[in-house]
Amino acid sequence: MHEMNKRAQNRVCKGAFYAMTDKNLTMLTDFYEFTMAHGYFEKGVGERRAYFDMFFRRVPDGGGYAIMAGVEQLIDYFQNLHFTEEDLAYLRGRKCFSEAFLDYLRDFKFECDVWAVPEGTPVFPGEPLVTVAGPMIQAQFVETMVLLTINHQTLIATKASRITRAAQGRTVLEFGSRRAQGYDGAIYGARAAYIGGCDGTACALADRDYQIPAGGTMAHSWVQMFDSEYEAFKAYADIYPDNCVFLVDTYNVLKSGVPNALRVAREMAAETGVRPKGIRLDSGDIAYLSIEARKMLDDAGFPDMQIMASNSLDEYLVRDLITQGARLDSFGIGERLITSKSEPVFGGVYKLAAVENEKGEIIPKIKVSENVEKITTPHFKQVYRLFDKQTGKALGDVITQYDETIDETQPYTLFHPIHTWKQRVVTDYTARPLRVPLFERGKCVYQSPPISQIRAYCLAEVDTLWEQIKRFENPQTYFVDLSKKLWTCKNELLEACRI
Amino acid sequence: MHEMNKRAQNRVCKGAFYAMTDKNLTMLTDFYEFTMAHGYFEKGVGERRAYFDMFFRRVPDGGGYAIMAGVEQLIDYFQNLHFTEEDLAYLRGRKCFSEAFLDYLRDFKFECDVWAVPEGTPVFPGEPLVTVAGPMIQAQFVETMVLLTINHQTLIATKASRITRAAQGRTVLEFGSRRAQGYDGAIYGARAAYIGGCDGTACALADRDYQIPAGGTMAHSWVQMFDSEYEAFKAYADIYPDNCVFLVDTYNVLKSGVPNALRVAREMAAETGVRPKGIRLDSGDIAYLSIEARKMLDDAGFPDMQIMASNSLDEYLVRDLITQGARLDSFGIGERLITSKSEPVFGGVYKLAAVENEKGEIIPKIKVSENVEKITTPHFKQVYRLFDKQTGKALGDVITQYDETIDETQPYTLFHPIHTWKQRVVTDYTARPLRVPLFERGKCVYQSPPISQIRAYCLAEVDTLWEQIKRFENPQTYFVDLSKKLWTCKNELLEACRI
Repeated sequence: MHEMNKRAQNRVCKGAFYAMTDKNLTMLTDFYEFTMAHGYFEKGVGERRAYFDMFFRRVPDGGGYAIMAGVEQLIDYFQNLHFTEEDLAYLRGRKCFSEAFLDYLRDFKFECDVWAVPEGTPVFPGEPLVTVAGPMIQAQFVETMVLLTINHQTLIATKASRITRAAQGRTVLEFGSRRAQGYDGAIYGARAAYIGGCDGTACALADRDYQIPAGGTMAHSWVQMFDSEYEAFKAYADIYPDNCVFLVDTYNVLKSGVPNALRVAREMAAETGVRPKGIRLDSGDIAYLSIEARKMLDDAGFPDMQIMASNSLDEYLVRDLITQGARLDSFGIGERLITSKSEPVFGGVYKLAAVENEKGEIIPKIKVSENVEKITTPHFKQVYRLFDKQTGKALGDVITQYDETIDETQPYTLFHPIHTWKQRVVTDYTARPLRVPLFERGKCVYQSPPISQIRAYCLAEVDTLWEQIKRFENPQTYFVDLSKKLWTCKNELLEACRI
Repeated sequence: MHEMNKRAQNRVCKGAFYAMTDKNLTMLTDFYEFTMAHGYFEKGVGERRAYFDMFFRRVPDGGGYAIMAGVEQLIDYFQNLHFTEEDLAYLRGRKCFSEAFLDYLRDFKFECDVWAVPEGTPVFPGEPLVTVAGPMIQAQFVETMVLLTINHQTLIATKASRITRAAQGRTVLEFGSRRAQGYDGAIYGARAAYIGGCDGTACALADRDYQIPAGGTMAHSWVQMFDSEYEAFKAYADIYPDNCVFLVDTYNVLKSGVPNALRVAREMAAETGVRPKGIRLDSGDIAYLSIEARKMLDDAGFPDMQIMASNSLDEYLVRDLITQGARLDSFGIGERLITSKSEPVFGGVYKLAAVENEKGEIIPKIKVSENVEKITTPHFKQVYRLFDKQTGKALGDVITQYDETIDETQPYTLFHPIHTWKQRVVTDYTARPLRVPLFERGKCVYQSPPISQIRAYCLAEVDTLWEQIKRFENPQTYFVDLSKKLWTCKNELLEACRI
């Protein structure tokens, strides 16, 4: 797989054929975004500046961190946001919008400021991953697509990070297109899986358009199409001597599949000197079969032939297989990655954090709730990640008001936003703003890095997290604290909100 | 919602703006489809006629039936199947395909026969939902998209059927775009949910392009944008007097939300005589709050104001709420429907069933497996559904060889394909072929019905299933038996396969 990664790095990022920008996704929005937009417009408050945050409340699978993804597609969406005459005709047909509002939509120009955490960054509950600030009517309208885009890719990147960590350095390929939830689920799922740490995908389109290295060899039907398994393997080896991975479980792995693979391997070695890459197991007791197959391959003088496993795997099964001594070099992960089967929803929400009054002052807004964890953190915010200068490890994140800075020369006191007696003073640290500006007054100011660079950045950033944050079950909770100023603002609003 | 359904029925099915045919999804395929296609081409067997079946092995959520969906998009895919110069350039860049093969792809013309179960039909494990017959190279190539398309929409339609049945006639709206797995997940998910029984969606694009009635009113941010909840409701009522559903849980449902909704309702009634449609609960104890809110609305003289619930609902929670006496008129169902959260994978597979030899004889093929349930049923097949003439209820399905017919004037003996002593003789029945031809030698011969008609057909067909098949847990297993001829063929092949 090293070769595949290198190929991805070296390829110039060409224009995507399956580009977001070719599609008019402006109408991919909850209908209430229109009723509200029209309402703000009619009430004359549409241009009032509002601040919305996208954040999430818990990590899927009870994990300790999530991996931010989807920013590139979100940028595409914002850049292509416009209403066609067909859109306006549809809305007019709904008979609840004024012509003045439709005229406004016809001339719609995205004018918001947007900040986001770069793709590949580990993120934690409560942090504003995306902030959209701009005319109320616009900042509200984009809610559905901000959530849909970031929720989906972050879900899959997070799952991929778990699965690839379970594989402990072994190659992991995303194999799930056929079980994805829709076409984009397959394509952007493959993209997100790569960001999260996968080495490649089976999806050809994701390779052509998003430079995710794609590979694959044969299905059972290839084997069935020939009169014998041997002939099927032999035919494949004739055509692809350099890329032979024989699928050995069509009939019987140990009695037929591996012996036939070895027969062809010996013939290849004798005739051309080229050796097959390996075999793939797709059913049965993978731990047992891989151990036995390994012995057979070794005994036959092919210790370099690798063994790949597929068949409804996820991080738990990969971990178990390795624990049980399975002799596997790589994994093809399908439905349980592409749908994040064990928890297929990333619950990001998009909430009003502040509005500006007539004087241009920012008025923080809070949403209270009977469920304490559903109470929002008000205000226009910034997020800093603190790193220990000695170890390079992340110490914790601090959410501040937008105009606060952290003086790295001074000790900083982290404190738990609910159990405030839980405090920790950190020294000798660096404080890095976690988010970057994407748009300034509607103009894109951010260039997404090549996908291979995002992936490498992700792996490096995950490395800054202590192991206890990365446990699959019951991980230690990473510190995400509020600055004293923001904490005070939140609590004052909560007091004022009491009914 | 009656109004919305009527609107959908009456609208002429216009050309979709977000059409499958605008997108080149030819490359949305597992890379091994290319390596195999090229292999068949190089070995000179690409034109050999092969039969592939798409089928599934178990119903998600342990249910008793699934709802077929996705056929319209599958037709779009087949009709648009072609390779662009960009595709060929990408493939050439992979350096493993011959120029002759790339020339073949350049002139590619879909020539297969395709049969499928119409959308909205209840389907059962083991039945060939789709059969593709044609040149090996073609019938193999389309595997990924057949599975992706049918797996996704069938998954969501099946979940929607469960949830809407749990609602016992109450209105159910699909609200899940923001938590969908990608853009198509939202759009085609809304489509499938409607087929399965939902009354509408929140997704505006699904309405514009697929005639799924969309609706919606306000989010919490609307309420927060105004200085008070009362002002927010009042402003909404000013603009949308005919479509007022007040979201009452931004601050406190019973102390603030419902009283403010009623204050506006009284003012509306006094000033214009128009009455609000109702209120929506999106958090808290929905059962308790709905009962209390119902009393308040009734006591205030608004028994016609309806109560809608949303907030992570699914068939189990809907059933529980109703059991607990919740006073709810409609449900908005989000993430647990659009991702089929409790089981987000529909495990359809695509397997070789037969090939033709040089003489044009059909040679059945079987895939054996250590897992007995993974053994395929060979041969080119047809499926019949038997209905009781007296009750109209479905008695069972029979899978036959392609050239068998069922003589309705004779008693028919159903027998279990594994426990063959389990037999049942049926009389006074009709036998309906379950599948229709979609393509004949590459030419589309099927016109998808309007979506509202598919939905109505689905509801009627689900009605032909006995209640015990439709239980959420431990449903009775519906009979899906093999004809004696097909059963014999399968067992002979199994015997011959022994290694």
